[in-house]
Amino acid sequence: MSKLPNVTTSIFTVMSKMAAEYNAINLSQGFPNFPVDERLTDIIARLAKENVHQYTPMAGFPPLMRQIAKLVQSSYNRTIVPETEILVTAGATQGIFTSILALVKTGDEVIILDPSYDSYESPVLLCNAKPIRVALNDDYTPNWETIKKACSSKTKMIIINNPHNPTGKILNEDDFLQLEKLLLKHPDIIVLSDEVYEYITFEEKHISAHTKDFLLNRCIMVSSFGKSFHITGWKIGYTVAPEHLMKEIKKVHQFLVFSVNSISQAAISEYLNVVDVNLLGKFYQEKRDYFQKLLQNSRFELKPCEGTYFQVASYVNISKDDDITFCKKLITDHGVAAIPISTFYSDHKDQKLIRFCFAKDDFTLESAAKKLCDI
Amino acid sequence: MSKLPNVTTSIFTVMSKMAAEYNAINLSQGFPNFPVDERLTDIIARLAKENVHQYTPMAGFPPLMRQIAKLVQSSYNRTIVPETEILVTAGATQGIFTSILALVKTGDEVIILDPSYDSYESPVLLCNAKPIRVALNDDYTPNWETIKKACSSKTKMIIINNPHNPTGKILNEDDFLQLEKLLLKHPDIIVLSDEVYEYITFEEKHISAHTKDFLLNRCIMVSSFGKSFHITGWKIGYTVAPEHLMKEIKKVHQFLVFSVNSISQAAISEYLNVVDVNLLGKFYQEKRDYFQKLLQNSRFELKPCEGTYFQVASYVNISKDDDITFCKKLITDHGVAAIPISTFYSDHKDQKLIRFCFAKDDFTLESAAKKLCDI
Ligand SMILES: CSCCC(=O)C(=O)O
Ligand SMILES: CSCCC(=O)C(=O)O
Repeated sequence: MSKLPNVTTSIFTVMSKMAAEYNAINLSQGFPNFPVDERLTDIIARLAKENVHQYTPMAGFPPLMRQIAKLVQSSYNRTIVPETEILVTAGATQGIFTSILALVKTGDEVIILDPSYDSYESPVLLCNAKPIRVALNDDYTPNWETIKKACSSKTKMIIINNPHNPTGKILNEDDFLQLEKLLLKHPDIIVLSDEVYEYITFEEKHISAHTKDFLLNRCIMVSSFGKSFHITGWKIGYTVAPEHLMKEIKKVHQFLVFSVNSISQAAISEYLNVVDVNLLGKFYQEKRDYFQKLLQNSRFELKPCEGTYFQVASYVNISKDDDITFCKKLITDHGVAAIPISTFYSDHKDQKLIRFCFAKDDFTLESAAKKLCDI
Repeated sequence: MSKLPNVTTSIFTVMSKMAAEYNAINLSQGFPNFPVDERLTDIIARLAKENVHQYTPMAGFPPLMRQIAKLVQSSYNRTIVPETEILVTAGATQGIFTSILALVKTGDEVIILDPSYDSYESPVLLCNAKPIRVALNDDYTPNWETIKKACSSKTKMIIINNPHNPTGKILNEDDFLQLEKLLLKHPDIIVLSDEVYEYITFEEKHISAHTKDFLLNRCIMVSSFGKSFHITGWKIGYTVAPEHLMKEIKKVHQFLVFSVNSISQAAISEYLNVVDVNLLGKFYQEKRDYFQKLLQNSRFELKPCEGTYFQVASYVNISKDDDITFCKKLITDHGVAAIPISTFYSDHKDQKLIRFCFAKDDFTLESAAKKLCDI
């Protein structure tokens, strides 16, 4: 008897592996394929020769924690205390898992929107708690009416993902008003805000949980340097939470991993002195626009993309296959890998939608688009 | 209500922090203070400029996984399959936590020896399972009679730590015979073998779980490159388990961290071509011998140390203080930090014993010993 009987190999693993096997252009798993900023690789190359090879303190390398506080201050005008409100994690995934494990108990319910990134359900199940999936509206906005109905005295946590993977949707001011109203009625509900794409938004500005006073004392905010600095392999993220929650999260962190990669923490800490995260939105907006333009004459129908580095596309004009079959054929017959959107739904419903990652160099986007336009 | 109500700041954090505050010589938390092998820092400095910055596959960087299989083969003559039996983890701590979380269920019991390293109890509690602490004999050998009595149909797992932190004790052939007999009667019990100090043994050779046929199908073996390569900050370890267990462990790993630091994995993978782990025992044996010699004329009574880089010492001739008070005074009054052994016991019983870490350069050992001999 497995504790996670329904978990199979992640779609990201399946598709990236298949892409490699068939030598297809990999627009499936979300990671950049262009070089990392030389300033950052210079820093880590130099640091390798310095004394940064032993355990950092449990909650993080102190200079990095101070830099994170500065970043949150400058991005959102929120003051956080490094010692008590920040945890550096082995990627945002570890921040999410650790937060859930620390706070969700047997019998609790956790609201997870549908579709969702695949990281939220399993930790809830491992807590002997119940994930309550609430469908997003057809335009991928949250349906606050149904969310409200799903909340009860058992609800421990609501997980939001803003900007949203896979749909690229971001929350607006009205969403936060609705959330505020809802939380007023449920003083014990905690919000877990997965904002790993916080700096990757386009026409509309990202509204972070950091900026909402009503959330400060009850929200866990998770972010990722992997996404912001094109270093998904480094697995360095961070979690911000009010002290009473962070205290519990740290207790689990201490035994789950104790501390995280020291050289990477030291390097990111220095890099934060020179990098401007505010350029990231424009950088990816250009990629999105270029990719959309390249696909203009394809038979794919592109959905709106407000943030993240993912583009959802309908292939309803191309094939009647379900999306998993379509993605497999896309690799074998057309040489491009994408992610079937059904895998983000709790009921795996097929909507003839797939997700492309456009965090790629222009040549890759062009080569992929050429193949996609030929279909 | 905390899920881990009894967890407080780890003694390693407390003592390392206090050591820093008082500018004491830190022989408390276990980490080396000498430079890392230049061959390894050269590799990582060079790799920083290569394409190693994105997600590795979930279970590990494939070349590293092959190197781990080779290492296990050459060290223990055991053949393991990288794809199905190895997981690269964010330190051994994450391997331990993930294995317990994947396999231990509500109501299960887990046998943990007493004293023990502090990483085992909390993950068991987070599974709503029960840690059953079984006292070691006075000479720190396992008491197989009481272990046998503690086993029942509820027992899911026995955790062994060999070489043993904090006592430096290693298991001998007879221990494994007793374990084999015990397991014959309990076909469902899994063994978790924490062997992070596997290459750090002295007069007696380390006997790994890898070498015991009766364990191969029911044992999870956890190890750490941090310990073996003097890079505790890198947080790269690995777990070896038979496929039917590894399948479950990977399911949790996927959501707990997904993958681990890519550059570090790539660097260790290359380094394994040139490093000889068999030199490690001799290296630390010299340190142990030197440290013991330096303390010969002190009033501390040194206990036997068969493995690990820890030396247990009695201060019964020096003070009547409990060991925590003694360790604090050792820092404030004498400028040396150590770890009180009571913190490794479930009942925190004081035995006037403290633990020194001798993974330090000669100058540090000499300076510390000078202070310790003055007491
Ligand atoms: C951790 S692998 C998945 C990467 C990712 O965030 C995505 O592709 O959605
Ligand atoms: C992870 S901090 C503790 C390091 C260690 O293994 C020890 O000091 O026992």
